[in-house]
Amino acid sequence: MDGGNHIQIEVLPSAGSPRIPYLEDKLVIVIDVLRATSTMVTALANGCQAIIPALTPEEALEKRLTLPGSLLGGERHALPIEGFDLGNSPFDYVPEKVGGKRIVMTTTNGTRAIRDASAAPLIWMASFLNMQSIVLAILRQFQTDCKFQGIVVFCAGTEERFDLPDTLCAGMMIEALGTNVVLNDLGEAARILYRSSENQLVDMIRNSAHGQRLMSLGLERDLVYCSTPNILPIIPVLEEGEIVWLTKG
Amino acid sequence: MDGGNHIQIEVLPSAGSPRIPYLEDKLVIVIDVLRATSTMVTALANGCQAIIPALTPEEALEKRLTLPGSLLGGERHALPIEGFDLGNSPFDYVPEKVGGKRIVMTTTNGTRAIRDASAAPLIWMASFLNMQSIVLAILRQFQTDCKFQGIVVFCAGTEERFDLPDTLCAGMMIEALGTNVVLNDLGEAARILYRSSENQLVDMIRNSAHGQRLMSLGLERDLVYCSTPNILPIIPVLEEGEIVWLTKG
Repeated sequence: MDGGNHIQIEVLPSAGSPRIPYLEDKLVIVIDVLRATSTMVTALANGCQAIIPALTPEEALEKRLTLPGSLLGGERHALPIEGFDLGNSPFDYVPEKVGGKRIVMTTTNGTRAIRDASAAPLIWMASFLNMQSIVLAILRQFQTDCKFQGIVVFCAGTEERFDLPDTLCAGMMIEALGTNVVLNDLGEAARILYRSSENQLVDMIRNSAHGQRLMSLGLERDLVYCSTPNILPIIPVLEEGEIVWLTKG
Repeated sequence: MDGGNHIQIEVLPSAGSPRIPYLEDKLVIVIDVLRATSTMVTALANGCQAIIPALTPEEALEKRLTLPGSLLGGERHALPIEGFDLGNSPFDYVPEKVGGKRIVMTTTNGTRAIRDASAAPLIWMASFLNMQSIVLAILRQFQTDCKFQGIVVFCAGTEERFDLPDTLCAGMMIEALGTNVVLNDLGEAARILYRSSENQLVDMIRNSAHGQRLMSLGLERDLVYCSTPNILPIIPVLEEGEIVWLTKG
């Protein structure tokens, strides 16, 4: 990349932004470490055929009617939804349950961020679990004759406006992309935060507001799993309203 | 403070927050390093009697009518407003101009943040220039029988949602308050960012989005001045709609 074009990266702190930037020429990366995008990556790794994002439980129920044999998954306030087949824990999405299935999924922030990104021509889901694959795919996309004018990262996070786990994950991505990047203030902050925390990622995530909420619900196992970098070589991509395994980078 | 109560600190990333927290029992600190709060501190240090914040240039003109002898100050998009006596540069607010005067002031984000904070019983303006005085006054407030349930920091910053100079300034405040603090995610991030940047504050601020805008307007002198810690022992406080020099901490 040296001497080539820089990659413009704009990191935005949460879903439901009042000011969504122009996305028509951007690659959008959605990050919701705890736990929506981590769970999507895991579901696809375990043989799930596709994830259909829905904004509300009601919309999820409606969509399921049109998809016989599909499952319902998701959460509200980190808790499973009554009558749904699966929660938002990656450990719910085991091969025996999700293999070969479509899953209609709704989460408080993750699916809203995906909806907010809908104007973009390409949308990927990132987490610590699949970060290496995301970084390699970005570098391939921006190597030559790239049709994108840059990357917008949506940190879907919590209902609050700044989420430390998602920002650290964005920082890991930026750090791995090397020096050939142009960052907005939050992107620069994400890189510094990741560099300062690289050796204590799990502790940082455990002490974050969202981490503390999961701990109080007895979900430390989910938190530790979701904080593990580079164990799943999968890029979930949004294609015609369904999140599927990207086969070409 | 050891063994005493912790100070709860919630840092919020910008003015016009869609979710303003409950402020009725909070001390609010407004930070707009580039340049509103830095300029207010400077104006008071140079003998200005009071600053009256106004949301818009029109409101400023109306308020001035009721205050004979007062001056008009402020900016839109970092530029002076036509017909106003003073811009938003601290170097405009010299003793010969502002000594003994009231100034009606409107800035893009700073005065909006002050308005957003209006439910709070106590509102102070902070910048690098007066940080040591702010920290000492906070420690005095929270030493014994404190009537506040914590501190909310508004980083008024740019029109964007995360401003690196303001976040670094909040981080300096948190770091100086010591370990007896409980932080939200952005507060924790601010502390880490400040620790990582302590020896290169001016460079960090120069490279931020807002810093780059000031540089492009030839305002590097303002930027360097506003990045200088602890040179003015003044706490601007909002009292009955006017910002004045706090005489008791």
